[in-house]
Amino acid sequence: MIRIGVIGYGYWGPNLVRNFAECAGATVTAVCDAREERLAQVRRRYPSVAVTTSAAELCARPDVDAVVIATPVDRHFELGMAALRAGKHVLVEKPMASTSDEASRLIDEAAARRLVLMVDHTFVYTGAVRKMREMTDAGELGDIYYYDSVRINLGLFQHDVNVLWDLAVHDLAIMDYVLKERPVAVSATGLAHVPGRPQNIAYMTMFFQNSLIAHVHVNWLSPVKVRRTLLGGSRRMVVFDDLEASEKIKVYDRGISLNPSPENVYQMLIGYRTGDMYAPQLALTEALNVEASHFVDCVSRGAAPLTGGEAGLRVVRLLEAASESMADQGRLVSLGSPVHS
Amino acid sequence: MIRIGVIGYGYWGPNLVRNFAECAGATVTAVCDAREERLAQVRRRYPSVAVTTSAAELCARPDVDAVVIATPVDRHFELGMAALRAGKHVLVEKPMASTSDEASRLIDEAAARRLVLMVDHTFVYTGAVRKMREMTDAGELGDIYYYDSVRINLGLFQHDVNVLWDLAVHDLAIMDYVLKERPVAVSATGLAHVPGRPQNIAYMTMFFQNSLIAHVHVNWLSPVKVRRTLLGGSRRMVVFDDLEASEKIKVYDRGISLNPSPENVYQMLIGYRTGDMYAPQLALTEALNVEASHFVDCVSRGAAPLTGGEAGLRVVRLLEAASESMADQGRLVSLGSPVHS
Amino acid sequence: MIRIGVIGYGYWGPNLVRNFAECAGATVTAVCDAREERLAQVRRRYPSVAVTTSAAELCARPDVDAVVIATPVDRHFELGMAALRAGKHVLVEKPMASTSDEASRLIDEAAARRLVLMVDHTFVYTGAVRKMREMTDAGELGDIYYYDSVRINLGLFQHDVNVLWDLAVHDLAIMDYVLKERPVAVSATGLAHVPGRPQNIAYMTMFFQNSLIAHVHVNWLSPVKVRRTLLGGSRRMVVFDDLEASEKIKVYDRGISLNPSPENVYQMLIGYRTGDMYAPQLALTEALNVEASHFVDCVSRGAAPLTGGEAGLRVVRLLEAASESMADQGRLVSLGSPVHS
Amino acid sequence: MIRIGVIGYGYWGPNLVRNFAECAGATVTAVCDAREERLAQVRRRYPSVAVTTSAAELCARPDVDAVVIATPVDRHFELGMAALRAGKHVLVEKPMASTSDEASRLIDEAAARRLVLMVDHTFVYTGAVRKMREMTDAGELGDIYYYDSVRINLGLFQHDVNVLWDLAVHDLAIMDYVLKERPVAVSATGLAHVPGRPQNIAYMTMFFQNSLIAHVHVNWLSPVKVRRTLLGGSRRMVVFDDLEASEKIKVYDRGISLNPSPENVYQMLIGYRTGDMYAPQLALTEALNVEASHFVDCVSRGAAPLTGGEAGLRVVRLLEAASESMADQGRLVSLGSPVHS
Repeated sequence: MIRIGVIGYGYWGPNLVRNFAECAGATVTAVCDAREERLAQVRRRYPSVAVTTSAAELCARPDVDAVVIATPVDRHFELGMAALRAGKHVLVEKPMASTSDEASRLIDEAAARRLVLMVDHTFVYTGAVRKMREMTDAGELGDIYYYDSVRINLGLFQHDVNVLWDLAVHDLAIMDYVLKERPVAVSATGLAHVPGRPQNIAYMTMFFQNSLIAHVHVNWLSPVKVRRTLLGGSRRMVVFDDLEASEKIKVYDRGISLNPSPENVYQMLIGYRTGDMYAPQLALTEALNVEASHFVDCVSRGAAPLTGGEAGLRVVRLLEAASESMADQGRLVSLGSPVHS
Repeated sequence: MIRIGVIGYGYWGPNLVRNFAECAGATVTAVCDAREERLAQVRRRYPSVAVTTSAAELCARPDVDAVVIATPVDRHFELGMAALRAGKHVLVEKPMASTSDEASRLIDEAAARRLVLMVDHTFVYTGAVRKMREMTDAGELGDIYYYDSVRINLGLFQHDVNVLWDLAVHDLAIMDYVLKERPVAVSATGLAHVPGRPQNIAYMTMFFQNSLIAHVHVNWLSPVKVRRTLLGGSRRMVVFDDLEASEKIKVYDRGISLNPSPENVYQMLIGYRTGDMYAPQLALTEALNVEASHFVDCVSRGAAPLTGGEAGLRVVRLLEAASESMADQGRLVSLGSPVHS
Repeated sequence: MIRIGVIGYGYWGPNLVRNFAECAGATVTAVCDAREERLAQVRRRYPSVAVTTSAAELCARPDVDAVVIATPVDRHFELGMAALRAGKHVLVEKPMASTSDEASRLIDEAAARRLVLMVDHTFVYTGAVRKMREMTDAGELGDIYYYDSVRINLGLFQHDVNVLWDLAVHDLAIMDYVLKERPVAVSATGLAHVPGRPQNIAYMTMFFQNSLIAHVHVNWLSPVKVRRTLLGGSRRMVVFDDLEASEKIKVYDRGISLNPSPENVYQMLIGYRTGDMYAPQLALTEALNVEASHFVDCVSRGAAPLTGGEAGLRVVRLLEAASESMADQGRLVSLGSPVHS
Repeated sequence: MIRIGVIGYGYWGPNLVRNFAECAGATVTAVCDAREERLAQVRRRYPSVAVTTSAAELCARPDVDAVVIATPVDRHFELGMAALRAGKHVLVEKPMASTSDEASRLIDEAAARRLVLMVDHTFVYTGAVRKMREMTDAGELGDIYYYDSVRINLGLFQHDVNVLWDLAVHDLAIMDYVLKERPVAVSATGLAHVPGRPQNIAYMTMFFQNSLIAHVHVNWLSPVKVRRTLLGGSRRMVVFDDLEASEKIKVYDRGISLNPSPENVYQMLIGYRTGDMYAPQLALTEALNVEASHFVDCVSRGAAPLTGGEAGLRVVRLLEAASESMADQGRLVSLGSPVHS
């Protein structure tokens, strides 16, 4: 039985507590939050769980094997470090940390102590994204031509991070899992409409070494909610619409076919294909349920998680590079040597 | 009665001929196309219209007052010049020309000869775009925060121009009409998936002097067709979905409200508004019908068209700048002193 | 503080318990279910709530002021009667009872004992239905021409009641609240595709004394889920789509206008109107939350609920009549003297 | 070369003329309409086609081999009879005639003269309906459980026929082609909202000898346009949405599975299946183009058309029976011995 302590009982924390509480092989023993009224709610719902306003106290508890961190991003490093140093396994919200340096140090600390360090890239545990990975693994889509995502809504303007860190982080986590290639350079643009606040609208292009391009479009100030990702391949193309109730993934047998021209082998003749579409049945289990089980399993077996510290670091590096580019109106920012996957 | 000669009877030409044929105050007297089988079709449908394979011959006809040019873009300059020099008024397909230099020379020639020069920015003549202009004119949307457009489908890969010149041109024409501000710099990214062909996927950000940002996303290799434009303002926001049968324009009473913080006047408190949505009834007349009448009217009265050479030139300058930026992976390209509107 | 006992902790019971637990002025003191594993779940979530497998025991508890009944319909009468006889106020799931006779007897019992008897017509407490009622109250729609509802999905085949009692009951409850008129006759058709089971597909037409017609279409065997109600009036028309995330109610300024013909005053000339559409912002509070508060308020003040026993009886009478008609392939069944509203 | 004369150049006539004009093996030689301004339009578009206001004259022309009738339904019989008696093959708009007696007499006349008599059941020639037929032919859907169609919009109120004859006729034609079974009885309800006009809203249930039920819902007074047909089978289910641009047909691998209960062989255990959905690529040729070719082919070869007089008669019989039932508020009307198919 893995005993879980959760730090942060705001928006996402209650979902984490509920899922670990219902997860076989785990039990939630303690919850920490600075706000008394949040702890009162924990007490009402889970009378047997210990509550505290002190993260240090939670980390020190002998009845906690693993710490789940669901606080604002600027506290991830400090709390993650404290938990690891107390010998606890860690599951931390995305994005993993405020800087890639912080992320690297968390990775090193966990490695040195042989503790599990996992990042809550929730989408990786959805039926839809796993189906996309299945298809890229099997080569079902052919060569991947583009990843294109729109993730917009009327959302909370955050104080500390720009909209890329809040919304694009989902796409970077999905891409990290679904695509075999890693971006080599980034160009991003965006704007802050409220003086003194970070950018609330942003566009981010990622370049790769081969013929793949990725683009993510995020906005906190859209009148309509859109969650639509296109994954275009040479053989098939996928539309992932997360707002669809029952057909989140549609696979289109559409695209172009290239044939060398009879006159000029360097010239390609382009043909168009339009064929059937199909929407595969997806696993319906709640992503967080799958993810909680996976974390518990990794802790139990000492195994490396699907979304470990390295994945978290790659995503943070992209966010850093994009923010740098955006501050300079789209200037290309190279990602240096790709992080080993 | 204005007598019209049309050069180019391919994809768009038949629509132009049909609309001018049905336009009060106009008559189509001649059609030119290099392909005999296209001319045969003109003969079947319009037995009284003269046909020719020679553009020079058409321009020389005394029974032609105005020439409509619906050829590939690389012939717009040469044919427009020939028509103007023959003393004919000109309506030319978008984009107006292959370069801004060509566009400027067409403007100068028309001005010197006091002839009407109009560019076929069709969307400007739709009920939806006119409604958007009405709203920006009346200040109904408040300050404009962003223009964001997605224009993607499985489309013909063109040989000569990249996807911006084919699809983004529509958005640049709409923006030129609807927005009061002009872009001052551009950053664009994109990729060509077929060796030897122009970019088939592209993303284009435009910066302005004030707190407005514009982005256009175009793609010839999408499995689904999307035509959706968001116009976000401080008071209201518009969604223009051109694929909607009956509610192309939706106006949302949504957004944020800013109040100076009581403690710190430089710090803004953000409130959220979500209110009603309404979809105004739009004029249903075919855009090309409205546009043909407008051209005939301008020719008759010697008036300046809504989408004259200057508008065409501004759009071409943006396409040039974006192509330059895209070739250099998003490098910011300044638009110099804004073209006078 | 009104103390609530809940009988039945299956599909709907947990929602009732949760909403009464969070309702100001109420507290849940006891839950009854025949299944031990269901009670175990109550214990985990609400350690302070008493649990029992005996409904009689729950009804007898002195710390229960009101009983909420969320069992299969065939037990509503017996349990409702037991609770009323024990002096408890009652909130009973829809449909109120298996027969109109049972419903009448519950009404009489509650009246004799001056206890509140309310039926859980949940939709009446949604923002969407209340908005519809507001519009009919204000005469905004003009004369009501039709109510037309499609409520289909791949749903559980029930053993004891046909699909009308499971799904059409929602529409009958909505109509009872929104329309001023009461049906005078019913014709229904349907079919059972599984031998020995009740009808799983049904169509029900209701006639009124004036120029209004209502139709409800329900199906447990549809591959897609549809929840769409049209309310057509002489001035405006409403589409209520319950699956829309944010625009559940759309009001169309569309219809016909009738003018006496100049030649023949008995002949009407028909004109068509198509105007704007608007989607009003709706109250977002969960319906069951509103409903729980309303029940608590009625019990506290001894007031008559919005959806009291008479409304429940009217709905049951319609279900009886429709089932009778359906058994006879659409034979018209009169509703006799309308139940007083 | 089959020479075609068209009677009626109102709403649908121009489509017929255009399609026969472009159909290989056919030529349009004459058009008849009582309105001079309609004939003027024919002259402008087709200068070589003879025009006349006299149907008798058109039928008498020796350069007409076949007559296409596109007039209001009350003239179908008289004009069809005149054309057949003049020795012309006939293609007549749907519904075939005003009464089944008229339809029968047209069939007899055509048979006696060995002339082709075809009814314009246009939907039968669409890619979508042909795909549905392919699936029922191949048994891909299993046993057919229901046909359910909604066909509503804000449409022209007709003077002479009720909404069933205008809109439901499409579904009856589709069912006649797609289903192997024929209805044995009908129950219909509806209402006229304009005094002195036929019913503008109607609901029609059809019963069959086996476990199949069909329902058609039509309305001229709907604020929104819906064209959606469900075809539910024991193995698969189809949704045909004619307003979808590219995925008109969706096939769902969903439904129930029945197993005899272990305890009671007469009791069925119901299991639910939800699987993939696919949208097959459909033929894109315009239905009227396919239909015109088919008519020309039948005339050339003396073959029986897919939608001949017998199909037209079956549809008229259903419309008669439904109108009779509707006049009597849903009274069941038997269809007598099924017409031989």
